[in-house]
Amino acid sequence: MNYGIILYMLGWILKTEGILMLVPILTAAVYGETRVGLCYAGVALVSFLLGFLGTIKKPKTKMFFAREGFVSVSLGWLVLSIFGCTPFVLTGEIPHFIDAMFEIVSGFTTTGSSIVPKVEDLSHATRMWRSFAHWIGGMGILVFILAILPMAGDYNMHIMRAESPGPSVGKLVPKIGLTAKLLYIIYGAMTVVMILLLLAGRMPVFDTLCMTFGTAGTGGFSCLNSGQADYTIYQQAVISVFMILFGINFNVYYLFLAKKPMDALRCEEMRGYLGIIAAAVILITINVRGGFSSLFQAVHHVLFQVASIITTTGYSTVDFDKWPEFSKCVLLLLMLVGACAGSTGGGMKVSRVMIAFKVAMRELASVIHPRSVKVIKYEGKVLSPNTLRNLNSYVIIYFFIFFLSILVVSLDNFDFMTTFSAVATNFNNVGPGFSVVGPTSNFSMMSYLSKLVLIFDMLAGRLELFPVLVLFSPSTWRRQ
Amino acid sequence: MNYGIILYMLGWILKTEGILMLVPILTAAVYGETRVGLCYAGVALVSFLLGFLGTIKKPKTKMFFAREGFVSVSLGWLVLSIFGCTPFVLTGEIPHFIDAMFEIVSGFTTTGSSIVPKVEDLSHATRMWRSFAHWIGGMGILVFILAILPMAGDYNMHIMRAESPGPSVGKLVPKIGLTAKLLYIIYGAMTVVMILLLLAGRMPVFDTLCMTFGTAGTGGFSCLNSGQADYTIYQQAVISVFMILFGINFNVYYLFLAKKPMDALRCEEMRGYLGIIAAAVILITINVRGGFSSLFQAVHHVLFQVASIITTTGYSTVDFDKWPEFSKCVLLLLMLVGACAGSTGGGMKVSRVMIAFKVAMRELASVIHPRSVKVIKYEGKVLSPNTLRNLNSYVIIYFFIFFLSILVVSLDNFDFMTTFSAVATNFNNVGPGFSVVGPTSNFSMMSYLSKLVLIFDMLAGRLELFPVLVLFSPSTWRRQ
Repeated sequence: MNYGIILYMLGWILKTEGILMLVPILTAAVYGETRVGLCYAGVALVSFLLGFLGTIKKPKTKMFFAREGFVSVSLGWLVLSIFGCTPFVLTGEIPHFIDAMFEIVSGFTTTGSSIVPKVEDLSHATRMWRSFAHWIGGMGILVFILAILPMAGDYNMHIMRAESPGPSVGKLVPKIGLTAKLLYIIYGAMTVVMILLLLAGRMPVFDTLCMTFGTAGTGGFSCLNSGQADYTIYQQAVISVFMILFGINFNVYYLFLAKKPMDALRCEEMRGYLGIIAAAVILITINVRGGFSSLFQAVHHVLFQVASIITTTGYSTVDFDKWPEFSKCVLLLLMLVGACAGSTGGGMKVSRVMIAFKVAMRELASVIHPRSVKVIKYEGKVLSPNTLRNLNSYVIIYFFIFFLSILVVSLDNFDFMTTFSAVATNFNNVGPGFSVVGPTSNFSMMSYLSKLVLIFDMLAGRLELFPVLVLFSPSTWRRQ
Repeated sequence: MNYGIILYMLGWILKTEGILMLVPILTAAVYGETRVGLCYAGVALVSFLLGFLGTIKKPKTKMFFAREGFVSVSLGWLVLSIFGCTPFVLTGEIPHFIDAMFEIVSGFTTTGSSIVPKVEDLSHATRMWRSFAHWIGGMGILVFILAILPMAGDYNMHIMRAESPGPSVGKLVPKIGLTAKLLYIIYGAMTVVMILLLLAGRMPVFDTLCMTFGTAGTGGFSCLNSGQADYTIYQQAVISVFMILFGINFNVYYLFLAKKPMDALRCEEMRGYLGIIAAAVILITINVRGGFSSLFQAVHHVLFQVASIITTTGYSTVDFDKWPEFSKCVLLLLMLVGACAGSTGGGMKVSRVMIAFKVAMRELASVIHPRSVKVIKYEGKVLSPNTLRNLNSYVIIYFFIFFLSILVVSLDNFDFMTTFSAVATNFNNVGPGFSVVGPTSNFSMMSYLSKLVLIFDMLAGRLELFPVLVLFSPSTWRRQ
């Protein structure tokens, strides 16, 4: 293990976080929240200085393998979260460290589960920081650093692979640094468009920023206790559309930018994703039609909810916990599926589910015709055995962690829907669950043990299992 | 597709079923249930005659591939069930065909889920036939036919592979016919020992036979509405021990017979299986200790329940639906794991779970050391890529069917624990679930749509997915 380079990466993360904290500091200044602002400023300063010390001299050896990539990403996220949650504790808004950690990890992993019973009790600065954490975590802090840092070499690829979601890494262009820049340019541009559209719909500036950060990162923290129920139809519709847009593989947008619109529209994952959304909206609308005054109302709210859950955002305009079991089960499955790879959404990813389905179909065919050899094609390319092996292990590990987490959380003795959906919603970075942890409720009544497990699940879900698990393997820490 | 040989196999199944129905006919004679007995006799006669007609002439061509093996097994089970449930309808004890089908499929697949609200309302003949169905289905009707039929050739292997549970086929000896004979000899001998032990404990003969058939097949139908709660501690303990014994890979018993006790004790799957049982008993006992008057009582009932669920039998001495959520979640997971491959138990099988775990660990290691090549060993042998590919597809298809079934059953709008556990318990051939379908309840309140889905799940679970799915592929039915 090359410890030098990992320390160097952690230094950059801390420096960056110190600067990013200017957002809540400015918010505090605007709203005159002096004491809160000073807490953020203090943490930002310490974070920046520590980061500065860690990056004074470049590491001697540039040895950087997959292992180093995984470790710097997962340790990076831990450090990011620890410093990110310290202001919550210092301001006294979330006094217990585990609660504060739960809240900020939920922010950075774009989950949006909260332990805060009444959101309006929080200062503006803290609410802004929670939402801004979604925006940072959505595309990835290390991708951000890759975009701004003049670093070159193999190791960028390893970092990109560890932090970016999906079964294979979506390099837009051969150079990683440029890919990272392009990703952030697209991300930033879409964010700005959404802000303008919401402002045009007369949403207050504060709400506009929080909602946009949360939508862009497919996060889900609200700045009001009522969630999104009190916004106008227009505002809700804008959020609906942008949730869906931010859940699409960013490769598609790059192809549009590169003037290859036909290639963009041919994207298999996007088609699957939009197909699943359409099917889910139709099924749920039929199921809940009776509960709404008009078909338009029904479709509007169902679309919002489906978009919110499949992109793993977690906003809600209605209390979908009151919907019939069938609709709830459809939503639960959407949580597991998640959005596209290479988007800011969580879950297993549409591409993984589609490839898994193709694997199953091929096996069935080979049972009938044992001697036929069939390759699996995805997005027009033959999938390598390595990708398939990795996907299979992913699915297996996914369910192992899922069921183990259910076991621990069940010790809290809530009903099964609560336990199951608490794990499903946090592991897939969605936000609200059902029953006790439904959309009108929060996670404050869970035990600290459960919260620790859910923090682990959020991180494992966001970083796609391997980087986090690697931390627990003794052979990771051996010097070579 | 070689239709001739499939018809021939179906003929043999019907002939055999006609003869096996002598058991309920004799029971009816003993208890003077004339009308019921005549119904069974009529069906037995028709079944035997149809079977006789189908086997008069041997098929012209002996072409028999995996495809033919799968189709004859799954069609065989369908035909077996259709004839097997006809007496229920004729006697009027279960008037609706889908209900009757649910009950007998639950019998043959050794599930033990029932739609009968009060078991004592059924005639002795019908109760005996339900339990005897467990015994027939436990080891497999086609394995039985292989054991008695003087057939030779490749196709025995294909049948064995399709009907026997587990990731790889457990041939005890090179010859399939002899393997089948040995399996039934071990199965029969253990059945006799259990009957003697229960009779020695003063259990009535009728109960003894029903309980033994249900235990041997890891089925779970009771002959009393109270389940196993009213039996003595000794009787319950005998059932506990034999449930565990029938859940062990029969290969272990063969090795004992072949005087290789050390090899038998080295069986990796058996060790894993017993380890899981021990861990589950300890965890649940700690969790429910307060609900019992003594530690002995607690361990006794917890062991019974754990043995019953992991072997997918489904007997119960206490209402475990009242246990805390943690204990219920442990039991739910045991349902999914199931017993050993090559036993009469259901579920995913301990060997699959163990291999899946090894696959996941290998992938994790290869993430850390990408250039190391590690093979996966199981029971001392290196696993072939084919076995691994098949296992991966099995896991993927398993969860696809699982979640699709949940969607359909959720239309009945029961609580999530009911829906989830109804699918889990039937798909894994356990029997009782939780909440509305808990151990003191039954499946009569489910819609016919749900019952059809659960019938499919029971068959798919017992035959391990592929044989049943092959029926739905158009390419299966193409002549070549």
